[in-house]
Amino acid sequence: MVDKQNFGPLFYPESVAVVGASGDQRKMGYQCVKSLVEGGFRGKIYPVNPKLSQILGIKAYPSIKSIPGRIDLAMVIVPAKHVPSTMRECAEKGVKGVVIITGGFRESGEPGKKLEDEILAIGREKGIKIIGPNTFGFLNLHANLNASFTPTLGRLRKGNIALISQSGGLCHIIGYGAMDGGVGFSKIVGLGNRSNVEFRDMLEYLEKDPETKVISMYIEGIDKPRELMDAAKRISKPVVVLKAGKSEGIKKAFYSHTGSLAGNFEIYRAAFKQTGMITVDGCMELFDVSKALSMLPPPEGNGVGIISGQAGPAILIADACEQLGIHLAEFSLSTMEKLEELLPPLTIISNPVDMAFTGGDPEIRIKVARILLEEKNVHSLILFHLYYPSFEFPTKEILKLKKYGKPIIICMSSPRDFLKEERVKLEEGGIPVYPTPERTAKALYGLLRYIKRDRSTETRTVQDSSQG
Amino acid sequence: MVDKQNFGPLFYPESVAVVGASGDQRKMGYQCVKSLVEGGFRGKIYPVNPKLSQILGIKAYPSIKSIPGRIDLAMVIVPAKHVPSTMRECAEKGVKGVVIITGGFRESGEPGKKLEDEILAIGREKGIKIIGPNTFGFLNLHANLNASFTPTLGRLRKGNIALISQSGGLCHIIGYGAMDGGVGFSKIVGLGNRSNVEFRDMLEYLEKDPETKVISMYIEGIDKPRELMDAAKRISKPVVVLKAGKSEGIKKAFYSHTGSLAGNFEIYRAAFKQTGMITVDGCMELFDVSKALSMLPPPEGNGVGIISGQAGPAILIADACEQLGIHLAEFSLSTMEKLEELLPPLTIISNPVDMAFTGGDPEIRIKVARILLEEKNVHSLILFHLYYPSFEFPTKEILKLKKYGKPIIICMSSPRDFLKEERVKLEEGGIPVYPTPERTAKALYGLLRYIKRDRSTETRTVQDSSQG
Repeated sequence: MVDKQNFGPLFYPESVAVVGASGDQRKMGYQCVKSLVEGGFRGKIYPVNPKLSQILGIKAYPSIKSIPGRIDLAMVIVPAKHVPSTMRECAEKGVKGVVIITGGFRESGEPGKKLEDEILAIGREKGIKIIGPNTFGFLNLHANLNASFTPTLGRLRKGNIALISQSGGLCHIIGYGAMDGGVGFSKIVGLGNRSNVEFRDMLEYLEKDPETKVISMYIEGIDKPRELMDAAKRISKPVVVLKAGKSEGIKKAFYSHTGSLAGNFEIYRAAFKQTGMITVDGCMELFDVSKALSMLPPPEGNGVGIISGQAGPAILIADACEQLGIHLAEFSLSTMEKLEELLPPLTIISNPVDMAFTGGDPEIRIKVARILLEEKNVHSLILFHLYYPSFEFPTKEILKLKKYGKPIIICMSSPRDFLKEERVKLEEGGIPVYPTPERTAKALYGLLRYIKRDRSTETRTVQDSSQG
Repeated sequence: MVDKQNFGPLFYPESVAVVGASGDQRKMGYQCVKSLVEGGFRGKIYPVNPKLSQILGIKAYPSIKSIPGRIDLAMVIVPAKHVPSTMRECAEKGVKGVVIITGGFRESGEPGKKLEDEILAIGREKGIKIIGPNTFGFLNLHANLNASFTPTLGRLRKGNIALISQSGGLCHIIGYGAMDGGVGFSKIVGLGNRSNVEFRDMLEYLEKDPETKVISMYIEGIDKPRELMDAAKRISKPVVVLKAGKSEGIKKAFYSHTGSLAGNFEIYRAAFKQTGMITVDGCMELFDVSKALSMLPPPEGNGVGIISGQAGPAILIADACEQLGIHLAEFSLSTMEKLEELLPPLTIISNPVDMAFTGGDPEIRIKVARILLEEKNVHSLILFHLYYPSFEFPTKEILKLKKYGKPIIICMSSPRDFLKEERVKLEEGGIPVYPTPERTAKALYGLLRYIKRDRSTETRTVQDSSQG
């Protein structure tokens, strides 16, 4: 039987064989070797190809058994019909972790399902963990391991978000999106057909993974939903879930993707909420909410303070917050007095705090932020910043505001190439940055929905009003 | 009386005075001159400042009356209390267009309101068009005119979207966001307090503006909603509207922004829909929908075809489409046969068309696109493309598909610095590109909601199911 917690050979291998390695740049068997090399993997890499002596300057071997040392992880890219024999060779060699990138199994009909059953039987008998088949692979960034067919993803930062997905495409969308900021991932895993590693297994493993703080999941269909729900109930870490399959029209597309049925969307969704998972509606929201949870302390309540140099964006943020049940904090008298003293006479003191009349003065902005963070009704703070040639963003001073222990979120708008360093520094320092009012509010909303299970009573600061 | 259609001096001036020009980079009076210069304005620029002989190498004048030639447009940045006297000087000089950037008028209380009334009276008496006060300014990109305090916005492309906004901040968010692609604007106008140029006036002007195809509006509050509705009913061009003020808690913030009450959000929203305006929920959606309308032909129905190399993103696009009432087109028998002939045997033929088994072959993708565009049930086409080192995006061939006369939308995911040229070329060629499945679907939804008024009967292809 597979030891469900023995993910070591997969995620922390000392040696990786690439079975079906290729010298042709257009082939996945080439890109997989490149991923390992460019990702900075420090263990041994063994490309397997009977026709080549080397790939990317690394000695190639004609077969698995001809490899001299131990193999912890095998990446398999050979055609589907050859995968069972490859699995047997792996088993003979004592390989304990396999990622099967090849497609053409359960998802493609009956003959493929038979092939997958064969693989599964070998895995079960020999205690081999199998990621896939039919996956882009996976990454363990803390081990500098990019065991996927996409070298570009190896550029991602080390961080504490684990992304577990039934779609490799979604891992790419989120990964590419994340490259702009300072947020990082612990593990990114494309589960593919989930032959013997399921969402449930990953949840249990990641709950104990010291490198993971937030678990982010994209689910199309699950074969044993009850098992996932039971596992989810036992997880203390925040779990953010995007469930596909809202629409009837795409049920067919589902099965042909990873060989699973979508199930009833509403029932899943309700069950996810019951187990404390945070459900989201789109792939950027999955990332945005995970990022907020990965960086920010839990807010003590749902009162938000908003500071902005421009009224329009502040109104849009406030609008989006209130729509989601996030309360615009009312300031107590002492806060009002402190703000009145600080701000120019024309300013009407209210929340959002409109800084339009202070120009771009970063010092006043920091002072206002401090006053708001000292206000008991303000449980979290949103700061809007617009790129302007003569306005500096006080990144260093903003980072110091973390000492108040309240979540601080930045909404920052600029042309792509501006303020890039600031975004990275802020996020590396634990303050998430979002580009639009709507995404900012939704990220805070996600943060507020996390049930803090480590407390004596489960508390949730806002009602989950998300649709569907 | 102001001739409501005489916007010439504002939008196509031959000479611009900057009253309150400054030599200090941190001042708006400096940035305004810089905006004019860097924006490539070809007419005369007259900085007005009694203490300086030049600004940015341009001869400065001590007063408006000391300027030798005619002045079409005056940008006013002097303190609020000096604005009425500046207006009088402008009137004496025969200036017919003024943009008052200075704040501190109606939005700041009774004394400010008196100042604004004074300005208004002068404008009314002398027939001067006034944009503002309390605005970032405006741009007419086709005239190389950046009459705003933000030089960066002058980098925007010439195009056919007019953005009319009660918030300068929102113009910046949308403008900065647009710089990444190949879409452009005709005019961007911050109306500010809308003292004598209102949304209604802009609608009437833009309806006849040959450079404007789509009108995009951000509205906080309106003083005479009936007049706007009446004007909107007469507009044949698509009008996309973002109305702020969903929440009760921010009504206070509204007034202090541009001196207008938010009014009842639901009533406004319903009225906007009745007049045929397309309502949206966020600032990126305002831009995304406007972009789709600016580039694409109207679809003949609400059947969409989806092509993707990755199943997960295709499912997310399909999901988002169906949620919005966009129908996944059913393929007729002949289309199925053509696809079966073309695609590898493992492929299950359905919509979305999953190209996973064809690798990154751009030729097959084009062939599939052609088959779908020939299908009568497919009224619009979404193509998903994921950056991958060895996959080329067939930009040139995709642009040729426009000949089918059906809307084609690209959803493209890549790290920021990749595929940038492709995005620009596609959008310059009239095919909009969006970064996520959800934004792609919402853009198509916006396109489908446009009532084609030029037809004998008004037709709308999907129901407007947007919330609020």
